[in-house]
Amino acid sequence: MIEEAIAQKLDVKCFSSNPLRLVDLGCSVGPNTFIAMQHIVEAVERKYLEQGLKSQMPEFQVFFNDLAANDFNTLFASLPTERRYFACGVPGSFHGRLFPESSIHFMFSSHALHWLSKVPEELLHKNSPAWNRGRIHYTSAPDAVSHAYAAQFDHDMEIFLNARAKELMVGGIIVIVMAALPDGIPASQIPSGVMFDLLGASLMDMAKAGLINEAQVDSFNLPVYAAPLEQMTDLVKRNGCFTIERMELVYRESKLVVPVSGKECGMHVRAGMEGIIAKHFGSGIIDELFDRFSNKSVEFSHQLESSQREGAQLFAALRRK
Amino acid sequence: MIEEAIAQKLDVKCFSSNPLRLVDLGCSVGPNTFIAMQHIVEAVERKYLEQGLKSQMPEFQVFFNDLAANDFNTLFASLPTERRYFACGVPGSFHGRLFPESSIHFMFSSHALHWLSKVPEELLHKNSPAWNRGRIHYTSAPDAVSHAYAAQFDHDMEIFLNARAKELMVGGIIVIVMAALPDGIPASQIPSGVMFDLLGASLMDMAKAGLINEAQVDSFNLPVYAAPLEQMTDLVKRNGCFTIERMELVYRESKLVVPVSGKECGMHVRAGMEGIIAKHFGSGIIDELFDRFSNKSVEFSHQLESSQREGAQLFAALRRK
Repeated sequence: MIEEAIAQKLDVKCFSSNPLRLVDLGCSVGPNTFIAMQHIVEAVERKYLEQGLKSQMPEFQVFFNDLAANDFNTLFASLPTERRYFACGVPGSFHGRLFPESSIHFMFSSHALHWLSKVPEELLHKNSPAWNRGRIHYTSAPDAVSHAYAAQFDHDMEIFLNARAKELMVGGIIVIVMAALPDGIPASQIPSGVMFDLLGASLMDMAKAGLINEAQVDSFNLPVYAAPLEQMTDLVKRNGCFTIERMELVYRESKLVVPVSGKECGMHVRAGMEGIIAKHFGSGIIDELFDRFSNKSVEFSHQLESSQREGAQLFAALRRK
Repeated sequence: MIEEAIAQKLDVKCFSSNPLRLVDLGCSVGPNTFIAMQHIVEAVERKYLEQGLKSQMPEFQVFFNDLAANDFNTLFASLPTERRYFACGVPGSFHGRLFPESSIHFMFSSHALHWLSKVPEELLHKNSPAWNRGRIHYTSAPDAVSHAYAAQFDHDMEIFLNARAKELMVGGIIVIVMAALPDGIPASQIPSGVMFDLLGASLMDMAKAGLINEAQVDSFNLPVYAAPLEQMTDLVKRNGCFTIERMELVYRESKLVVPVSGKECGMHVRAGMEGIIAKHFGSGIIDELFDRFSNKSVEFSHQLESSQREGAQLFAALRRK
């Protein structure tokens, strides 16, 4: 789909400048980012060749972006030696400016935009209807909690889109792949939603067993959000700087359902969430928590199995007007 | 001197493009690089203001370059929060291409170009007149060894200058600050030369004491070189892509002579050389080696004191033709 977006939508003739600058927003440490950027470079090269522009083939500069706390040392150590591009690392949050004005031709962000810039503040106020007592996510929570998450995503995406609109050249394209809420399915019935419920319940069990403080659970919330397609579409339209070339849900079997044992389930969730949990509760609780979580995943496997087996991904290709 | 080079030699009117791209080649982990790049940004800003070009003030993008093994995580964690530039890390050797063609306006390299890309190969061949038996540097070595080092520097600088000539825009400037050999002084009489002699002698003592193998010392050489001014000047002229705006020796009291105790001497040399020594001999010998080296520094302090108290730095400002 990315290659198709490049083949059909990237108008290389409107880029007079050499080099071509590409970005991965939320690249982590590889190797996925290297594979993706290699495919993108090759797709652009094909485009030049097909249009008979071989003599104008540009050099490529690829910017790998993630938070400053990302392990860039590992990323840099594993850069492909045979790469056909100049590589840079760019530390910083994509919820803000990262690049000079009109300096980027193509941006890509995969599995990163479901991270909010922060937990919505209302969730932490005891007197707020959005106080998220005893839960760690909006799954199965009152509407006020979901609304607070949705509002935070609105706010973050507004900043994100404004920043990208500044950084992309006119005609430049951004491709976004991110977790999304399938049409007409509540968050509590998608695999990740069930998982977050079970993880929250495991933490509450530990609080009841006196292993952690219940107030610690109340004040902990996962800053991740799966947007419905309509919300994302509205945000892009309201921003006004981009033409929507493509915006759709792609369904694929969720990694969270495929594992047969609770242990595998636990490992998968642990890989993604261990850091943020350890930061709040201390790393001492992690083993115990994920043991409990694995057991709970087995106990509630019927619920997981009856959840949507297919996770939804939002695929968007936006062109800078 | 850098600010003067910018004020006098950087013709901002010939740069039509926004942003202005600046590079530090061999940046290490900070904070020196942040201070230098901040000064450079401010000097360029002043230049725009003085020329009445405030409305055309560009955005700045700063590329911090060092080997991929450099600790970029530390560098990124300590980036000044109030910086007025977009920051990138660029992993890779400056003995080769790092940036797209004509994409950089100003380059800077401080205390990095005395590192050769590798030890000259002849030093390791037993049948070569440049076999550097029982020494770890060209200091006090036969002429053939010095010539091999000088030839390696010629080779490295040719590649360096060709790469920078590609990367710099026409009118762009590179400022180089590097260790240099003072006029008319042999390497064995400059402070770093005396140090390398003592370090080599300490290693040989350890070999004699059976703590390391003598062949290990024979096969170890420090890939660092202090060029005479004439050699550097000739290399730039031969390359032909740059106008020499400034090329001179700057003398300043050597950090190697200021320390009064052998221990301080040892710590200073250890900071710069520990990595490369540990890689060859194993980290197990480091403490013992620098203990011996400190004692030897005290023992030979008369030699150190009679060496040139002032180290020479080469300062070059080159403009891309």
